[in-house]
Amino acid sequence: MSTKDNTLSIFALGGINEIGKNMYGVQYANDIIIIDCGAKFPDESLLGIDLIIPDITYLQENKEKIRALIVTHGHEDHIGGIPYLLKKINVPVYATRFTLGLIELKLKEHKLLRETDLIEIHSDSSLNFGQADVSFFRTSHSIPDCLGIVINTPEGNIVHTGDFKFDLTPVNNQFADIHKMSEIGSKGVLVLISESTNAERPGLTPSEQLVGNHIEDAFLHAERKIVISTFASNVNRIQQIVNAAIATNRKLALLGRSMVNVVDVALERGYLDVPEDMLIDAREVKYLPPEEIVVLCTGSQGEPLAALSRLANGNHREVKILPDDTVIFASSPIPGNEKSVSRIVNNLFQLGAKVIYGSSSHTGMHVSGHGYQEDLKLMLTLMKPKFFIPIHGEFRMLHQHRLLAESVGVIRGHTFIVKNGDVVDIENAMARQTRKIPSGDTYVDGIGIGEVEGIVLRDRKQLSEDGMLVIVLTLNKVEGSLISEPDTISRGFVYAKDFEDLLNKVNILVKETVNELQEEGKQQIHVLKREIKRAVGQYLFSQTKRKPMILPIIIEI
Amino acid sequence: MSTKDNTLSIFALGGINEIGKNMYGVQYANDIIIIDCGAKFPDESLLGIDLIIPDITYLQENKEKIRALIVTHGHEDHIGGIPYLLKKINVPVYATRFTLGLIELKLKEHKLLRETDLIEIHSDSSLNFGQADVSFFRTSHSIPDCLGIVINTPEGNIVHTGDFKFDLTPVNNQFADIHKMSEIGSKGVLVLISESTNAERPGLTPSEQLVGNHIEDAFLHAERKIVISTFASNVNRIQQIVNAAIATNRKLALLGRSMVNVVDVALERGYLDVPEDMLIDAREVKYLPPEEIVVLCTGSQGEPLAALSRLANGNHREVKILPDDTVIFASSPIPGNEKSVSRIVNNLFQLGAKVIYGSSSHTGMHVSGHGYQEDLKLMLTLMKPKFFIPIHGEFRMLHQHRLLAESVGVIRGHTFIVKNGDVVDIENAMARQTRKIPSGDTYVDGIGIGEVEGIVLRDRKQLSEDGMLVIVLTLNKVEGSLISEPDTISRGFVYAKDFEDLLNKVNILVKETVNELQEEGKQQIHVLKREIKRAVGQYLFSQTKRKPMILPIIIEI
Repeated sequence: MSTKDNTLSIFALGGINEIGKNMYGVQYANDIIIIDCGAKFPDESLLGIDLIIPDITYLQENKEKIRALIVTHGHEDHIGGIPYLLKKINVPVYATRFTLGLIELKLKEHKLLRETDLIEIHSDSSLNFGQADVSFFRTSHSIPDCLGIVINTPEGNIVHTGDFKFDLTPVNNQFADIHKMSEIGSKGVLVLISESTNAERPGLTPSEQLVGNHIEDAFLHAERKIVISTFASNVNRIQQIVNAAIATNRKLALLGRSMVNVVDVALERGYLDVPEDMLIDAREVKYLPPEEIVVLCTGSQGEPLAALSRLANGNHREVKILPDDTVIFASSPIPGNEKSVSRIVNNLFQLGAKVIYGSSSHTGMHVSGHGYQEDLKLMLTLMKPKFFIPIHGEFRMLHQHRLLAESVGVIRGHTFIVKNGDVVDIENAMARQTRKIPSGDTYVDGIGIGEVEGIVLRDRKQLSEDGMLVIVLTLNKVEGSLISEPDTISRGFVYAKDFEDLLNKVNILVKETVNELQEEGKQQIHVLKREIKRAVGQYLFSQTKRKPMILPIIIEI
Repeated sequence: MSTKDNTLSIFALGGINEIGKNMYGVQYANDIIIIDCGAKFPDESLLGIDLIIPDITYLQENKEKIRALIVTHGHEDHIGGIPYLLKKINVPVYATRFTLGLIELKLKEHKLLRETDLIEIHSDSSLNFGQADVSFFRTSHSIPDCLGIVINTPEGNIVHTGDFKFDLTPVNNQFADIHKMSEIGSKGVLVLISESTNAERPGLTPSEQLVGNHIEDAFLHAERKIVISTFASNVNRIQQIVNAAIATNRKLALLGRSMVNVVDVALERGYLDVPEDMLIDAREVKYLPPEEIVVLCTGSQGEPLAALSRLANGNHREVKILPDDTVIFASSPIPGNEKSVSRIVNNLFQLGAKVIYGSSSHTGMHVSGHGYQEDLKLMLTLMKPKFFIPIHGEFRMLHQHRLLAESVGVIRGHTFIVKNGDVVDIENAMARQTRKIPSGDTYVDGIGIGEVEGIVLRDRKQLSEDGMLVIVLTLNKVEGSLISEPDTISRGFVYAKDFEDLLNKVNILVKETVNELQEEGKQQIHVLKREIKRAVGQYLFSQTKRKPMILPIIIEI
């Protein structure tokens, strides 16, 4: 990247045309500030992959210029990649008190806590890196302690919103700094970088308070045990569940590792207010009257290993769902999770539970943490940016966000819809998007980081669909003739006992192939392997319409 | 099953706690009538499976009692299993004219057309099988020519609704027979078997006409080429697209094999009215002015091989999406398909198209063919059944449907929420659900029907996640010692070039294991294989947290 002193560059390493693994960078001259370092979960096509993080090649190549990682808030798609980044680049991490609590949990797990420089900031902090001054403003979202970021450079001000909505009656009294945003806008914003998750949804996001009312209502009507599930990180919603439990004289049991961990962090750091003696151990649930109990658990997205899924399958060790228990999903299924959620709801009905589930508009048990169109327009109006980069969303959301920006006065042509790896350079008050830096998905699995090659994934895909046929041959080294019958082993293709005929014919075909090649004098191993693959592959496809992987193993004696 | 002359039995072979593979049976004495024979598509956990059909063991065991397969309508989840049923049991098939057209397409493909007895029926047909008389009533749905079925037995009347909604202004003038339903109800219904797909949705399903208005509106506003995608079987919607094209002076090109096939059947049998010269070949699209063209295509559910997906990827041979083309999804994503649809929408935006997409309530481009709560209550009210069996839906829908039935007067305890394989017996006007017959998912893949064993699927799952390691050993037959270095081949586990160290250590471990066993005198092949698997498995898991399939191949010389 250019090192001319007056170039300002903004780049995305993740978060564009995807929901997840957010990571952005702002570079002025020789100073790089990283904003967020998220992860995302793989879809079902990425066989065996555990986690996806951004490609950080560019950052590794410019290690010495990186001054800070600033984290806007503590959601997985903003902090999940931090341990992997820190293993390659030891950069100081700046975040608010609650966000740091969640980051510390991760670093402990990865044994990185001691060597990492963690700096607590708040909305009135100010930092300086080279010629860039950094300040903050508070926003509302579905997790406490969220920040927007202002980077003041000689070229102008860059504003990054983080994730936000405008909740005028927030549960935690952490009001969004509308006055401060207004002031920032008045001073002039060169580039606004704003999130786009809900750019397709008209109106203003409802307040989290609304959910509290519905939860309390449902608690009042419940006759026996209540089981309620929500995102562990949504501490404000958890506070409302606690409040509803107080109002209905119920004790609270927590199920699920992340629920226990996050509640611990929130209690310890003062983000959650729970009366003493209210929390009970999950093992006590079965000894108390059901009308005195709330079980708060993970798994509202249908995660198969989470607490709610185990409850619905009837195989949780401590807690059982009994007829007329009330089960509440204080969540909406994230696109892609509908089927798993549905499976759990079906099981709960079979157990005789009363289930409150479905879309948030239907049950009132969830509101989004991401601003709808009017929230986004309010942010654009407050900031009055010259240039606009919509982030954090798929292309369809970014395009809608562009239209919203134009509707409140951003000049057509001043919005940059970038891809991951695109760089927007600003010089002499003109922005251009011309260059690219390396970017992409880095896969994490048990083997390590970024070690799963495309060829391995292709193999897994073929194996997953049609399995494998291993064909073992022993050949006379001199004559190239078969010493014994070929042996064919099927794994994931057909069940050998049911397909003896088919596999016998494969053996005959292999023998014929070897003999023909021997007669033609073509006895190189690679030719033999190729021809066996071809002949057997063709035969199997004609018989079964399947293409298993064929692995000939040739032993020469 | 009992062959007493006065027992009436109703059973489900598919369609309960699932959306798909509907198949129900009604047996009176020694006569069995089958209703529908559907298929469903596998979810991503069923690696390599093409199709799922009902288990028909019970029918095969009672072949000689089966009198008829009656098909309510032509959707995949009601006809998709027919060729596989017919291959095992040659039963006469009764269906309406349009439904038969679609069934014939399938039978042709499976080369079963000549030997199958296809009998055309209509809403006024009456049939007789043993002591059962069968009549019909017409319903509205998202495909033409749908029937409900009345089976009159000495024990009483059984009514099966098929799929339905009450559309008082249907596009094709095929009005639902409300008067006939009312008459059936007046005469007395012993058991109502009714579909439950939308039992969770309040209100009355909107009329298909509504979609026509929105389509015409969008056509009027389109400036260049229009691409519109919907279900091929929704002939009424296709008629409305044709009408909108006429109103805006556009020609129509069809893309996608099923679209072409279904339109052919519909034209040929008089279910679709298209002006002569209106249909053009896809190859002509690029030579005509874009404002004179509508492309009607398959793929509205994001199917990766369908026409719309290829258009969005820019790799369709005949048609290209250009900036300011309008692309309309005349559909709502079916749960589970959201992500694939979203991927296409993103690509279309990147090509510069104007995209009309999203939930039906948002765009007005889709209405459901399945009745909402008020439709279901109207059916229950018209039929006034003594007993009620909700079908065609997941448990959550069946439970909601039970509540709806009770709200309009069905006695608590008279609703049977069955599982696939459950039998409801009715004798002396009393219904009991006690027995079970074999049921379940039969997998179809290229290999054949029902031939994919659990063990093969388990293998595919392990292969898909962690791949395979083949370890080849050559041993001295007499001494059991290694003749040459073990050879380790990785497929889908790690990329061998990057993991030489790891694979070398595996080889060393294999040698150690063989030597130890030799010293201990344990030289049986199965012991060797077991111990190699154990040792290598443990080592790999400790190093990589992965469990590839390990396949030792031992050659003795």
